Amino acid sequence: MIGIGAGDPDQLSLQAAKAIGRTDLFFVLDKGAAKESMVELRRRMMKAYGRPSRRVVEGRDPDRDRTPADYQGTIADWRHRRSEVTEALISEHLLDDETGAFLVWGDPSLYDSTIAILDEILARGQTLFEYEVIPGISSVSTLAARHRIGLNRVGRAFQVTTGRRLTDEGWPAGVDDVIVMLDAQQAFTAHPDADIYWGAYLGTTDELLRSGRVADVADDILKTRAEAREQHGWIMDTYLLRRPD
Amino acid sequence: MIGIGAGDPDQLSLQAAKAIGRTDLFFVLDKGAAKESMVELRRRMMKAYGRPSRRVVEGRDPDRDRTPADYQGTIADWRHRRSEVTEALISEHLLDDETGAFLVWGDPSLYDSTIAILDEILARGQTLFEYEVIPGISSVSTLAARHRIGLNRVGRAFQVTTGRRLTDEGWPAGVDDVIVMLDAQQAFTAHPDADIYWGAYLGTTDELLRSGRVADVADDILKTRAEAREQHGWIMDTYLLRRPD
Repeated sequence: MIGIGAGDPDQLSLQAAKAIGRTDLFFVLDKGAAKESMVELRRRMMKAYGRPSRRVVEGRDPDRDRTPADYQGTIADWRHRRSEVTEALISEHLLDDETGAFLVWGDPSLYDSTIAILDEILARGQTLFEYEVIPGISSVSTLAARHRIGLNRVGRAFQVTTGRRLTDEGWPAGVDDVIVMLDAQQAFTAHPDADIYWGAYLGTTDELLRSGRVADVADDILKTRAEAREQHGWIMDTYLLRRPD
Repeated sequence: MIGIGAGDPDQLSLQAAKAIGRTDLFFVLDKGAAKESMVELRRRMMKAYGRPSRRVVEGRDPDRDRTPADYQGTIADWRHRRSEVTEALISEHLLDDETGAFLVWGDPSLYDSTIAILDEILARGQTLFEYEVIPGISSVSTLAARHRIGLNRVGRAFQVTTGRRLTDEGWPAGVDDVIVMLDAQQAFTAHPDADIYWGAYLGTTDELLRSGRVADVADDILKTRAEAREQHGWIMDTYLLRRPD
C-alpha cells in the first residue's frame, strides 16, 4: 500500500517511487469519470517509476449512499463489498511470489479504507498475502504547508474530525484548533468567529486556497467551492478552523 | 523550509530533493552531540541531492529549560532567542537573490517551531525574504504505517496532543483515539485499558515498535525506552492510544 501524496506528482517519496518500481501488478478501483484526473495522475506515476512489465487490473468501486441515515453501518457495508471486489482482483490476477500495489491518495492512515479492506480480506482467511504500508504526504500536511501554518499552537492539542461530526456535535471540547475532512456540508459556516484555512485540490494545478475570519470569507469559499465542483465534476477539500487567541 | 520525513532517507519527497538541489545555503541549528545522528542524516541528504557549490552555516541552538514551570512562556522566550540566532545567520550569510533552506524533521506543520521563527523574523521587519514550505512525511504517518493502522476509525475524530497535556488534563473529551507527541513523562501509563501503538526512532535503522493493551505492554515500553535513550543519548518517540470499541 503506497501513499502517493496529495496530488502533486513530486510529493511522491523516493521510497514510494522505489516501491512502484518493485510492483508486478497495480490494483485500481475505478471511481467513475468524475475522478478521472486522479486516476490519470496514478497512471503517470506508474509510467514514470514502474517496470515495463507491470500490469494493471481495474475493478469497479461499489457505489454507496452518500447521505445515509446510518453512516457507520453504510460505510461498514460498503467496505465489505469493496473488500470482496478487492479480494477477487487479488486472487484472480496476482500470481504467487508477485508483488501487488494499491496507490493511495495522501497518506493511507488518514480517512482511507484500504488498510481495513486488506485486513478484512486477511481475516476471512481465503486469500493470503503479506503487506506493507508506505506513508505519504497527507492533504492535511499540504494544507498547512500551502498556508504556511502549524497545525498545533505551542504545547497545544488539535483535533481532526469530519464535517458530519462538526455539524452534529458542534465545536469539539478541549481544543481551539480543528481540522475538518470529508465535509460535504460546509460545516464551518456555523463558526463565524473562527479563522479558517481552506484548501481544495491541494498539490494539484487546480489548487484553491482561502483564509480569513469565517464571517469574512465563508461566502467566497462557498461560491468558489460550488463553481469548482461544477467545473471539475468533483471536489476534495479540507480546512483548519482556529479560534483566535 | 523543507520537510525531510521522519528519519528514513527514502522518505524524502521528489519535491524536497529538488528543493535541496536549488539551495545555495543550508541553515543548521546544532542541537549538540546527542542528536548528531540526525544532523548526519541531513548531511547525507545535502550530499546526495545538493549542488556542489552549496554552503552550510551552523548556528548554536539556544538552550532551554526542559522542565519549566511556565511552559508556554519558556517556549515563547526560547523561540524568540532562536529567531534572533536564525536572523543573524540569514542576514550575515545569505546573499541577495540566493536561496536558503532549513531541513525540518518530519513535517514542518507538526510540533515544529521553524515557521513561527521565520514569521517572527519577518514581523521584526529588519531581514526580508520570501519563504515556501514543502511538506514532509510526519512521524505520526510513519507510526501508523509501521503498525498498519488508521489514525481514525470510520467517521470518527482523533486528537493530537502532548504528553504534558495528557498528564495534566487526562484523556481528552469526545475522542477515543489520541496521538501523543513530545511525551517525556510516559503519560500512557495512566490509561491501562487503552491499546497503545508506540514507536521510537521511526523510519531509522534504530526503529522500535511496540503495541498491545497498555496494562500488558507498559513495562516493556518503559524498559525499552529507558535503555534506548541511554544507548543513543536521546529518544524521539510517539504513540497512539486507542480505547477499544
